[in-house]
Amino acid sequence: MASKKTNINTKFAEKAEALKPELHERIVHPLSVIEFVPDQTAFFKCKAIETHTIQDLPSLSFGKDDQIILDFGSHHVGYLSFHVGVDAVDVDAPTRLRLTFGEIPYDVTEDLHPSKAGISTSWLPDEIINVDWLPTDVKMPRRYAFRYLKIEVLDTSQRYKVRFQNVKVRAVSAILPAVKVEALITTDKKLNELDRISQATLRDCAQTVFEDGPRRDRRLWLGDLRLQALTNYCTFKDFRLAKRCLYLFAALPREDESLPACLFEKPKLSAASDYIVDYDALFGPTVYDYALASGDLETARELWTTVLGSMKMPMSHLDKNGKFDSRATEAWKFLDWSEGLDTNAGMHGLVLYCCKKVNKLAKLIGEEPPYLDIVERMTGATSSFYNKTLRVFVSGPERQVSWISQAWMALSGAVDSHISLEAIRTAMKDSKALKPLTPYAYHHVAEALARCGGEADCLKLMRDYWGGMARAGADTFWECFDAEDSRRSPYGDCHNNSYCHAWSCTPSYLLRVVLNEYFKVEAHNWTRLTDQK
Amino acid sequence: MASKKTNINTKFAEKAEALKPELHERIVHPLSVIEFVPDQTAFFKCKAIETHTIQDLPSLSFGKDDQIILDFGSHHVGYLSFHVGVDAVDVDAPTRLRLTFGEIPYDVTEDLHPSKAGISTSWLPDEIINVDWLPTDVKMPRRYAFRYLKIEVLDTSQRYKVRFQNVKVRAVSAILPAVKVEALITTDKKLNELDRISQATLRDCAQTVFEDGPRRDRRLWLGDLRLQALTNYCTFKDFRLAKRCLYLFAALPREDESLPACLFEKPKLSAASDYIVDYDALFGPTVYDYALASGDLETARELWTTVLGSMKMPMSHLDKNGKFDSRATEAWKFLDWSEGLDTNAGMHGLVLYCCKKVNKLAKLIGEEPPYLDIVERMTGATSSFYNKTLRVFVSGPERQVSWISQAWMALSGAVDSHISLEAIRTAMKDSKALKPLTPYAYHHVAEALARCGGEADCLKLMRDYWGGMARAGADTFWECFDAEDSRRSPYGDCHNNSYCHAWSCTPSYLLRVVLNEYFKVEAHNWTRLTDQK
Repeated sequence: MASKKTNINTKFAEKAEALKPELHERIVHPLSVIEFVPDQTAFFKCKAIETHTIQDLPSLSFGKDDQIILDFGSHHVGYLSFHVGVDAVDVDAPTRLRLTFGEIPYDVTEDLHPSKAGISTSWLPDEIINVDWLPTDVKMPRRYAFRYLKIEVLDTSQRYKVRFQNVKVRAVSAILPAVKVEALITTDKKLNELDRISQATLRDCAQTVFEDGPRRDRRLWLGDLRLQALTNYCTFKDFRLAKRCLYLFAALPREDESLPACLFEKPKLSAASDYIVDYDALFGPTVYDYALASGDLETARELWTTVLGSMKMPMSHLDKNGKFDSRATEAWKFLDWSEGLDTNAGMHGLVLYCCKKVNKLAKLIGEEPPYLDIVERMTGATSSFYNKTLRVFVSGPERQVSWISQAWMALSGAVDSHISLEAIRTAMKDSKALKPLTPYAYHHVAEALARCGGEADCLKLMRDYWGGMARAGADTFWECFDAEDSRRSPYGDCHNNSYCHAWSCTPSYLLRVVLNEYFKVEAHNWTRLTDQK
Repeated sequence: MASKKTNINTKFAEKAEALKPELHERIVHPLSVIEFVPDQTAFFKCKAIETHTIQDLPSLSFGKDDQIILDFGSHHVGYLSFHVGVDAVDVDAPTRLRLTFGEIPYDVTEDLHPSKAGISTSWLPDEIINVDWLPTDVKMPRRYAFRYLKIEVLDTSQRYKVRFQNVKVRAVSAILPAVKVEALITTDKKLNELDRISQATLRDCAQTVFEDGPRRDRRLWLGDLRLQALTNYCTFKDFRLAKRCLYLFAALPREDESLPACLFEKPKLSAASDYIVDYDALFGPTVYDYALASGDLETARELWTTVLGSMKMPMSHLDKNGKFDSRATEAWKFLDWSEGLDTNAGMHGLVLYCCKKVNKLAKLIGEEPPYLDIVERMTGATSSFYNKTLRVFVSGPERQVSWISQAWMALSGAVDSHISLEAIRTAMKDSKALKPLTPYAYHHVAEALARCGGEADCLKLMRDYWGGMARAGADTFWECFDAEDSRRSPYGDCHNNSYCHAWSCTPSYLLRVVLNEYFKVEAHNWTRLTDQK
């Protein structure tokens, strides 16, 4: 893929730089020494059992081919350090260790190499280190995202064994460890657990940018940013970090004014060559969400021209009737990783959604809403995607029925809520309909349900999907989840998956914002029922 | 092996610490990009061919599974750094590299793992590193000893390749790079080459102590120290470093006043549990050599008590007739790694040699020579090792004939030179006689030959043995050499051998000191012959 030229907007880059957070640190210690034993009832077919208490660890000695797994209790992002002590006649050689940082049990129960992944195996979370002059402290210079640490002693010598002492992680996040987040309205334990895991996910992704995944690929993606920012506004309320991320994108317009799908902070700010039409279009809504949540209209005004630029490429896909045509350019339309997805209907809904949000943003900052006519035309063209017999939206020449097409049509508000809700429900009941693969797409289905009066359906989906991850033992929500296949991966090898992934952190947003009224009414009804007793 | 208690002599340790050198640095760059191709005529069955000039290197790009070998032209000890550049659409993943530091071709032409070595495989000279945020500089924190650097690109990503730029080594040694060493008397090219390789070996082993090998095991051994010091006095003349090493041993007497065979500088000064009777005995001669070479009698006086202590354990092996009996204690008598060596005769010669040197040391510093009687008795007992029929010294109940027994008997000066010379020559001609394995033992054979009037024999042995290493391509002399077997190793795997090893650096000493008179006479004769023309 050839990259379009980017002209860096220095003023915006400087604004972003000035907003770069000092990361907050917490020191985290392992909680126990474990091993995994087979358990066919568990999602990962194994369960952890404690082999030693953590108090025992400093006195345990390990020689060649020994290994140990430490459980840090939950997912953390940070810098590992430990002391290598010795049980020695002589320390007459270096020690060679392999450290493997596991987000899930498979990372530490299986060999990572050779890998079947189609993407870079440099992401695999293992390191081999040679340590001279024991006893000594070891400070790993790289940042890792993990819950489990496996240490394999590749060799010591015949004259000494090693001990692992003062093992700790300097965990980092842009979010203050002590940040206070309001309690959920609902006291439902399972929903509170989803909220807690969402927050942990968001916290671990919130670094000097909102990363997509702190293990892989540690980058700011526009689509992920939008969902992280929404979740952030109703939890941690770190407006500065959201603002910084907006300026980072605004600093990197391509020559046609479109925005890159993602960007690199290091070694210097630069746009990735990836371009995604839907992500480009979602920049406007992301600015709108920010302005609405923060009240910072000044930033929205400053980014207004960028917003208009970001709509150009998406709009170029509209035919004269205002119908989105994915074939208009070869540019990537994403929506989800589900295989064979036809994006015409979903993109139509998404672009219409974005036009409406940008119109709202215009009003908010005193600009003329630029897309009133287009919204009208696109709304009119929506009917051409609707199959009255099947009562769902269909997409492309094969008239594909997918959950995500329904979701974005619903979110666009092009048709009455009850029609949208019926369409989503119909697709979800149709075993032949294309299901989403990523939490990113599941989010849009869940939000669409709730926005159309299907709050109970939304909750059921959340309990099934994010709840499924929670039941599988997730400490943070994953990049990809298939309840039937614990090895599901978009990359050919689940060891390359990210198990703390930004775009899956939205249950907090769904529970706190999208379902807010629903819970209020529910709570009110409950109070009334109680009063009547 | 249980370690005897060591009581650290703080005063001596402080003296040693004060003598710790600041290492001198040289920046060394690779000279060419090579690969090894089969060559059945070469010792290592391969030869290097240049695939790219070093000027081409910065522009070469390497992706997954590519590799490169850089040739630094000769052996160096130091710290590697390089810049990882990119040839990229996007640098969207870390890069994972395996670096292998080769002293000999096999290190970089073969897989090091799995290893068949019986000693710690943590010594194997390879590292796997993961590098974030390219382009970037990489500074390897550990010290390596090598000539060849193999870089294997384990992975980049599909979107970028890496380039290696500004590759360099900060080579370190206690010896000044610009140190002037007198020319040899002889202009023989081959002998001058041996002298040059000896100096390179000594330079690379001379760090904050005289290490046995800068690759493995980076420690100060007493027996190696003696030979390094002797070579040092006639080349670099770094008396401070020799003095420091003497004080380090003197700082670590064991409870019976014996000295450890080796010691660790880091992480703090401590004795290894290794004890070798012959190394203990050789401390006195090492002090004597130092005092004689440096003129620093003050140090010799201060170490006198330590010298006397170091003789106790060796002397405890003498029977009432003054005959050394290896069975008297279970302590390790080394002399050489040759398999099945009976040490009785060799140790008898060695201890007698040491007693005489200590008597000389006493005279030098105004003390009473302590071993006059013992020398007399031991000299008398020497005949019991001599087999008049075979005209060689035999050792132990099996009446073993070995080169090294003859060598130490000769060096002891117990019998007339011509008898000693005959004994060595006889053993060397006897195919059943046990040959040495290590350059350490070959040195003592070579020196013994020269000291007994067999200078030409000595030179022949040097040309055969050290010359054999030179012909095999040695940049520095090796821990172990067998002209018939390029994989010979005391450890079961030659990848664990050290190919820059202190105890093989003595050709310079042999050429400059032991053979000095011989060359002078030769030069004189040559001049006379020329004059007569």
